[in-house]
Amino acid sequence: MTAYDRLKARFSRIAILGEAASVLNWDAAVMMPPGGGAARGEQLAVLAGAAHTMLIAPEVAGDLDEAERAGCGNGWDAANLELMRRAYERARALPSDLVEASARANSACEKVWREARRLSQFALVRPHLEEVVRLVRETAEALAEATGLAPYDALMDGFQRGITAADVAPVFADYEAFLARALPEAEAIQARHGTAMRPAGPFPIAAQEALCRRLAERLGLDFTHARLDRSTHPFTGGTPTDVRITTRYDETDMASSVLAVLHETGHALYERGLPERFARQPVGQAAGMAAHESQSLIVEMQACRSDAFLGWLGRELHEAFGGDPLPYRAENLARLWRHVARGFIRVDADELTYPAHVILRFRLEQALVAGDLAVADLPGAWNEAMAKLLGITPPDDSRGCLQDIHWYDGAFGYFPSYTLGAMAAAQLMAAARRSVPELDATLRHGDLAPLLGWLRTNVHAQGNRLGFNELLRAATGKPLDPSDFEAHIRARYLHS
Amino acid sequence: MTAYDRLKARFSRIAILGEAASVLNWDAAVMMPPGGGAARGEQLAVLAGAAHTMLIAPEVAGDLDEAERAGCGNGWDAANLELMRRAYERARALPSDLVEASARANSACEKVWREARRLSQFALVRPHLEEVVRLVRETAEALAEATGLAPYDALMDGFQRGITAADVAPVFADYEAFLARALPEAEAIQARHGTAMRPAGPFPIAAQEALCRRLAERLGLDFTHARLDRSTHPFTGGTPTDVRITTRYDETDMASSVLAVLHETGHALYERGLPERFARQPVGQAAGMAAHESQSLIVEMQACRSDAFLGWLGRELHEAFGGDPLPYRAENLARLWRHVARGFIRVDADELTYPAHVILRFRLEQALVAGDLAVADLPGAWNEAMAKLLGITPPDDSRGCLQDIHWYDGAFGYFPSYTLGAMAAAQLMAAARRSVPELDATLRHGDLAPLLGWLRTNVHAQGNRLGFNELLRAATGKPLDPSDFEAHIRARYLHS
Repeated sequence: MTAYDRLKARFSRIAILGEAASVLNWDAAVMMPPGGGAARGEQLAVLAGAAHTMLIAPEVAGDLDEAERAGCGNGWDAANLELMRRAYERARALPSDLVEASARANSACEKVWREARRLSQFALVRPHLEEVVRLVRETAEALAEATGLAPYDALMDGFQRGITAADVAPVFADYEAFLARALPEAEAIQARHGTAMRPAGPFPIAAQEALCRRLAERLGLDFTHARLDRSTHPFTGGTPTDVRITTRYDETDMASSVLAVLHETGHALYERGLPERFARQPVGQAAGMAAHESQSLIVEMQACRSDAFLGWLGRELHEAFGGDPLPYRAENLARLWRHVARGFIRVDADELTYPAHVILRFRLEQALVAGDLAVADLPGAWNEAMAKLLGITPPDDSRGCLQDIHWYDGAFGYFPSYTLGAMAAAQLMAAARRSVPELDATLRHGDLAPLLGWLRTNVHAQGNRLGFNELLRAATGKPLDPSDFEAHIRARYLHS
Repeated sequence: MTAYDRLKARFSRIAILGEAASVLNWDAAVMMPPGGGAARGEQLAVLAGAAHTMLIAPEVAGDLDEAERAGCGNGWDAANLELMRRAYERARALPSDLVEASARANSACEKVWREARRLSQFALVRPHLEEVVRLVRETAEALAEATGLAPYDALMDGFQRGITAADVAPVFADYEAFLARALPEAEAIQARHGTAMRPAGPFPIAAQEALCRRLAERLGLDFTHARLDRSTHPFTGGTPTDVRITTRYDETDMASSVLAVLHETGHALYERGLPERFARQPVGQAAGMAAHESQSLIVEMQACRSDAFLGWLGRELHEAFGGDPLPYRAENLARLWRHVARGFIRVDADELTYPAHVILRFRLEQALVAGDLAVADLPGAWNEAMAKLLGITPPDDSRGCLQDIHWYDGAFGYFPSYTLGAMAAAQLMAAARRSVPELDATLRHGDLAPLLGWLRTNVHAQGNRLGFNELLRAATGKPLDPSDFEAHIRARYLHS
């Protein structure tokens, strides 16, 4: 057995512990009775601890050195070995008392944040967030030391490798300028079109559930390797051969379940398409959170909210729920589901304004990590940025800097992934259209197979071989470039 | 930190890995899409491997020695330390290549057994079972060496400690003699009573499910710490703070779901009642498979199929399903659910004849482990024993030695637990009746609280502090004694 073989066996075991944790996380959100929560937390902590112990075991350094000396070409195995080295260095960089202190601080802060958000009292959670930020900065410094990246980039790298703040900043600045022109224009056009009709409910949950399942199957999800369940917040969990999507149902609004399922199916198809040959190896995993979001959004936003697909989808919906067919026509669904509005809440935002929410967070979190912004000044800085980006001022902090869990749970460097994913989705869709001329014609029949085929080859089957920008370059001929997303926005929102 | 504290921390982590595996096993039976099976097998193997590695780590021997030298009194902690030593010695006794060879042989044999049973062709699976038995004998020898027990007892000890074949054999011989007299008598009495009426279905699944949940709650199961789901074979899984029972539903027969839920609720209540102070410690676990079965059977057979409870249950059933009330009267339910018959299949057997099925297996598996019976001679020996015990001869091996999975999956020494559990249930019930005079009066109102209270104190809260016979002695004043079970059978089946 070579050193590389030993490492592969070790990383496979680590991945298997991760699979177990993933199923237990899914269960906690979907199945677990409330009384199981405390024990579940300890189960997940022990699994994480066992995986960490395996990763930083004393033999690993020697095996990595030996495998690197022996070399394993320039292909998949070389990339795999590099990712092993990266995982090891990142894990070893953090002293265990820092990891534990962070876990404790995040957990305490997150609990208080729920209350603070409910009461819209930032002051309540401020000392906790200060402690979280202090530990995040310490973590970022340690990771920067180990990886040679800048501190914020080292955090971002944990969610999405292959792109840095220096790559992202000009892309976001470009979009900010674009948005300043595009948003008033889109609003004016929208005003001329009048309001959309709401399909009349109630929409029986059983009918919604059956429809959601049919739609996911139609998009390409094979339920011998998948489940669809309910949870408070839709998500995709499980493992590549047993992927589990969730949604929530509202009897008065079928859009809430249907759109979530289209989104999660995009995530699920990515997991299903990862290269089996490197299953459980670092190089065989998804390429990061931005890449993952690109796959949910190319399905939900690019494909399924396109005019072409909405025609087909509207007929399916009407068949499922009956009633007046007019609200189910593509033009009306487009008005309903592509409505642009300046709002305070990120998760409720439309495609056009969503990046503004992310740009704001990207800038503020960089300043927090750099120490250029004190936690005490966060609410003011937030509201100022909101006024500048969208021209609105949150009436309270629960609709401002208290709205998202991420920071209060210690997640810094994650937010850019949402918009990088949205932009990558547009860039990939443009490339897919060039490569598959019949793509829109097939969407008209609710057929995603040609798009999925292209994604399988150009994204899914690439696993984690390439960083974000390199993945885009290989698939589309260029690194991240906001122009395809802007062209998409123009085509969808700026035609009168 | 003392050596004993270090051991407690280690055994807690081992137990937590076991909890994770338990939830994953439940998921595999209840939720998992078929495509997830292969990965799940590997997840469970890695968890088992990690727990085993923790258990036999080099530090453990020193910590055990040190803790034993230091001593920790004569109470719970002393018992806990003894159980740690026992777990360690059992785990260390088996070389890892024997463990792996057994796992492979069991898995291969079990697959072929499914086919052999379907076709009723013992010859098909014979070579596989020979290999399994060879490895079981090797395992038994190694465990005997480590524990000082006889080989078969060392296997039994893995499922239920504190009782040996030498304790069991006379108890079973006593029952065999009792059965020879009691069975014809019961059959004669039954013949005089005429046949039972079947409640007329269909019984809508949703109504059965709601009823099953209500019944489990009524028996004392708290659904903030429990779930009820469906699976092919009913079972109890999960963890003490998140216990999960399952049943299956048949639209034409509500008894199949209801009786299974009463049984599994007994198991679940045991898990819920284990001593929290020693949660995740060896001494805080259930006291073994026979003890567990005693708790399911005291609820299902002793309490819920009693005349007193059937009156209440019949009214509940009639309220849930409506229709003619006559079949729901206690006398009729008793005739229906306490019907005695000489049958070939263990899992379909009534209370009276069930022990015969177990006695047969107990004797044959001892002979197989001792090398006194060749696998080739198993079908003949089976049929002979069946003729002797119940006076019937299986028409084929699928209704004979191929019916149960246990041996084909490598489980030898498990079968006695079923009947030890049934006998212990009767013995515990008799003691509970002496101690709680109003017990039958409360059963008449569907109220198990007094019984449950007694069991909580005398069984559940004892955890695994005592071996099987000692647990019975502490709760009932004597070790296992078939006379209470025989008295129960006489009272229930031999009154005309």
